[in-house]
Amino acid sequence: MRIIIFSLRVFAFAGVIGVFILLPLNCTGDQLEDIDFVDFSNNSLDVFTISNVNNGSNRLWVHFCAVYVVTIFVCFLLYYEYKNVSSKRIAYFYASKPQPHQFTILVRSIPVSAGSSVSDSVGRFFREYHPSTYLCHMVIRRTNKLRNLINDSKKLYRRLIHMQADPAQQKYKRSSRFGLFGRKVDLVDQYEKRLEDLEENVRFEQSEVSLAGEEVRAAFVSFNSRYAAATAFHLQQGINPTQWLTEEAPPPDDVYWPFFSSSFMRRWISRLVVIVSCILLTILFLIPVLVVQGLTNLSQLEVWFPFLKSILTLTFVSQVITGYLPSLILQLFLKIVPPIMEFLSSLQGYISHSAIERSACNKVLWFTIWNIFFATVFSGSVLYQVSIVLDPKNIPAKLGVAVPAQASFFIAYVVTSGWTSTSSELFRIIPFIWSLMKRPFVRDTDEEFEVPSIPYHRDIPRILFFGLLGITYFFLAPLILPFLLIYLCLAYIIFRNQFLNVYAPKYETAGKFWPIVHNSMIFSLVLMHCIAVGIFTVKKLSLAPTLIVPLPILTLLFNEYCRKRFLPMFVAYSAETLIKKDREDENDPSMSEFLDRLVTAYQDPALMPIQYSVHSDGLNSPLISSAEV
Amino acid sequence: MRIIIFSLRVFAFAGVIGVFILLPLNCTGDQLEDIDFVDFSNNSLDVFTISNVNNGSNRLWVHFCAVYVVTIFVCFLLYYEYKNVSSKRIAYFYASKPQPHQFTILVRSIPVSAGSSVSDSVGRFFREYHPSTYLCHMVIRRTNKLRNLINDSKKLYRRLIHMQADPAQQKYKRSSRFGLFGRKVDLVDQYEKRLEDLEENVRFEQSEVSLAGEEVRAAFVSFNSRYAAATAFHLQQGINPTQWLTEEAPPPDDVYWPFFSSSFMRRWISRLVVIVSCILLTILFLIPVLVVQGLTNLSQLEVWFPFLKSILTLTFVSQVITGYLPSLILQLFLKIVPPIMEFLSSLQGYISHSAIERSACNKVLWFTIWNIFFATVFSGSVLYQVSIVLDPKNIPAKLGVAVPAQASFFIAYVVTSGWTSTSSELFRIIPFIWSLMKRPFVRDTDEEFEVPSIPYHRDIPRILFFGLLGITYFFLAPLILPFLLIYLCLAYIIFRNQFLNVYAPKYETAGKFWPIVHNSMIFSLVLMHCIAVGIFTVKKLSLAPTLIVPLPILTLLFNEYCRKRFLPMFVAYSAETLIKKDREDENDPSMSEFLDRLVTAYQDPALMPIQYSVHSDGLNSPLISSAEV
Repeated sequence: MRIIIFSLRVFAFAGVIGVFILLPLNCTGDQLEDIDFVDFSNNSLDVFTISNVNNGSNRLWVHFCAVYVVTIFVCFLLYYEYKNVSSKRIAYFYASKPQPHQFTILVRSIPVSAGSSVSDSVGRFFREYHPSTYLCHMVIRRTNKLRNLINDSKKLYRRLIHMQADPAQQKYKRSSRFGLFGRKVDLVDQYEKRLEDLEENVRFEQSEVSLAGEEVRAAFVSFNSRYAAATAFHLQQGINPTQWLTEEAPPPDDVYWPFFSSSFMRRWISRLVVIVSCILLTILFLIPVLVVQGLTNLSQLEVWFPFLKSILTLTFVSQVITGYLPSLILQLFLKIVPPIMEFLSSLQGYISHSAIERSACNKVLWFTIWNIFFATVFSGSVLYQVSIVLDPKNIPAKLGVAVPAQASFFIAYVVTSGWTSTSSELFRIIPFIWSLMKRPFVRDTDEEFEVPSIPYHRDIPRILFFGLLGITYFFLAPLILPFLLIYLCLAYIIFRNQFLNVYAPKYETAGKFWPIVHNSMIFSLVLMHCIAVGIFTVKKLSLAPTLIVPLPILTLLFNEYCRKRFLPMFVAYSAETLIKKDREDENDPSMSEFLDRLVTAYQDPALMPIQYSVHSDGLNSPLISSAEV
Repeated sequence: MRIIIFSLRVFAFAGVIGVFILLPLNCTGDQLEDIDFVDFSNNSLDVFTISNVNNGSNRLWVHFCAVYVVTIFVCFLLYYEYKNVSSKRIAYFYASKPQPHQFTILVRSIPVSAGSSVSDSVGRFFREYHPSTYLCHMVIRRTNKLRNLINDSKKLYRRLIHMQADPAQQKYKRSSRFGLFGRKVDLVDQYEKRLEDLEENVRFEQSEVSLAGEEVRAAFVSFNSRYAAATAFHLQQGINPTQWLTEEAPPPDDVYWPFFSSSFMRRWISRLVVIVSCILLTILFLIPVLVVQGLTNLSQLEVWFPFLKSILTLTFVSQVITGYLPSLILQLFLKIVPPIMEFLSSLQGYISHSAIERSACNKVLWFTIWNIFFATVFSGSVLYQVSIVLDPKNIPAKLGVAVPAQASFFIAYVVTSGWTSTSSELFRIIPFIWSLMKRPFVRDTDEEFEVPSIPYHRDIPRILFFGLLGITYFFLAPLILPFLLIYLCLAYIIFRNQFLNVYAPKYETAGKFWPIVHNSMIFSLVLMHCIAVGIFTVKKLSLAPTLIVPLPILTLLFNEYCRKRFLPMFVAYSAETLIKKDREDENDPSMSEFLDRLVTAYQDPALMPIQYSVHSDGLNSPLISSAEV
């Protein structure tokens, strides 16, 4: 997955163009001489922005042309990137080995007649309507309880291993036993006993779950060819469109087992609830933040913590606190947004980790744009922001006034937030601190270490937001561009390093994140056009606002064309592709073996037999052995 | 197709409920006594509207409850009607005989490699990817020229028949030949010769079109089962999503042959152009109408037609002209809207008459709502209307003020426009006048008579518009309801008669018009809620506007649920349905014969062999003989 690097390239290209066209424009030579470059306060930066250009000046027409040129250039790049990514996606599919999810669909909302099980119902339906292609199915079961048990036993097992491996600790425990007249039993023995009990429990639960009810009305259904699976996925199966709902199966290790709501209504309602709560969170997020920030002014602190009084009277300390505490609080609040959004997405009924992260990525993106861009630009109350959105006629004018005023803030934002976040990414400070904090409590961090995967829903929105800043500000305050370019180069180098050396991809979506990038860029362009209309109106360049109007329309048409031309390739593979790939495999001798393995491919990991207890000799065997259920 | 009757029933139900709840509400007894029922001017009607209720009066809460009750009732009816129509649709499909369009898809944007024809390309593609199900295909050819030739020869043939059948005319012509020394040839002979020439031409063109180029990059592709056709229709065929575009084929006699634009881009652009021109037509329609109406004031008429001066001075004449001329002009302009919308839809790239009419129906509906409802309510300039739409916050308040003021106008509108249009439908005045006017010029009307089909795109929007009036006004001015009910009963009786005795259905869409009805009703409900919010604000019923707000949200959610639950059934049939139907046919011995006939089912009528000339003895054979191409 090199989407991030792709997008970096696009932004870098666009940025370079912007710099070369517009950098020398906004300020004349003599003004430049007046600037005290050491004191980079807001006032001096304003010299570089469009505010410095006289009303109705002809130099504004250069800005006007720049808007056109950059829009065309960005659209051109977007088109080729989309084409590139989609062709890479097809190539990846052709090059891929047969994978279970290519042959499988997920069926939900299975209607069950009284007296028969879900499994019977699925088998009967697909044997009747797809007799020549249907292979097997795997009904999903509710395993939340089981999963907790297994987690418990896993933890216990780890502790046991650790104890056995660390003789010092073991001896100490033993001696303590002897010292206390045998009342304390051997800890290892005790743990082993508890582990055995737990395993017994797990096995009992497993057999119970497998045999009796607990069936969710959903199943993975496998077919003997990719084309057959795609056919079943694309056609509405049952007469009632809310039953027999099909979707593409994710790869087995990408399945998000905990949340399998099956009924159509329940999923629909939870989707609605999640969307509403997301919108509320996005719109109202700043209220608690402002409250907390308001609480942290100096006098309040003095009241709460009287002992700090002496320190707070020092000018330096009070300056640091008033300057950095509010922004630190904001940053901390922002840090918890991606996990919250991920959690909300997981409630939405997605069945794979990748889909959850993709949806969370979108949510975080809009959250960032609203809460950082619009909240800064219209630095009023939430109601004021909402009232602006509800008054579409005046949006450009208001943007035209408010956006240029914040240029220096966003330049500073690129430096403070962008540069530091990227650099801190290199050191992965938070996971580092987290592991430091965790070490004293959890005794077996060595074994638990997993290669981390990059949280796309945290990083992609951030990069896209800087892209939005670059595109909206390039013609207002071209000075932002060098800073952005430095950020992008830094990010390119660092993320390249991280991808190669630190992170391991948890799943492969074959470029499915690209449409998010594309949409965000299109939104940035249209927003930029709105701002341009507003600014040229404010600057009294009479004809320019009217001449800008076709640009957003053309951009949206371009987007519409791209949606038709490329988006379907990201949703599903074409019949041509699937059949070609199927034909390729027909001559492959390993295919029959692969199809046999499909039967157990979508086994819930919680239902795999487990065997940790020391009586077996499989202490070092993999945790999840290949099952034979 | 009984959609109209269905919708009549829904409206009648809703109307009855409205009458029984609200009619006695708005006016107290003593006020009623004051009314002079003979003089039904605006002022007296206002007594029956909500304007008569005091601000903040408790009686307003009854209106409030009525809004809730009627919304719930209408939604309930809508749900059951949707369910009813969709189950009828499935039942119709099960009961239908094998029809060519069930086995066929239309493929457009076929990519052609250099040196091969479209036909080769289609054959190769489907033989490769659907070897077991592909049956045959029929490439579409550009036959506009040919169609004109055939029309010419058809006309000539008719005239000839007429001449031979009418001995008087024939003799007269003959005698004139003798009278003028043979310089005038026998007209029959002359016509026969010209007909032969034309036929020769047609045959030449036909062979030319069939052999050489003129291929459109589109083809009807038939399969050996419904399921196979549906599979090919649902899956994206080619890797490039803008090539090998598939859609369901219409029945052969429903195909709209003249306009087959094939390239993806051209269709997309023409779609955009049509949509834009529709929106412009809808928004700007009133401007030319107002101009024309302005030109027809009395003094202007006197300037143009000085000879009318003496007549115009008569009070009666001038009253009639000033009173009725403007509304007559508006009615005439409105009459030409459905054909214009139909023409625009036909440019949009639809391939069947039914799809064109369905799209035109939607367009006319929105046109009517905008140009009659909103133009009357906000009786200002177009710019004022647009500015209201662009200012969403104030819409309810403005509606709340403006809508009740127009109650008496719309009651009058129901009587004048609704009652008269329905009654005139019984006599079909315009076709009657048209045929009267045409008779002197076209000499063979007897043979040309075809059973007319009802223009759905003219009548459905009108009925739906009255539904909108009923729903938006029932709680403001319940007096509209008896008038509407009379209209609906009248329409029910008349349309039932027309369907049974006058019109013949030209095509069968199996209920595909229903979603339009459903959407229009939902829009009416939400509009009614907006008005209610506005009115309760104006009437200073403090809590009510807030309590109404959940209602439109719930209505829209209900609509969303219906879209998920029923709409897919109107788009395509499910795998279950198709496979069941296919299995049923497997045992039918006539199926193989039917499949053989599929080869020529989608033959362009213009390419059928024609034979009119008198040398053949097939004078009375059907015009379009069953072809053997």
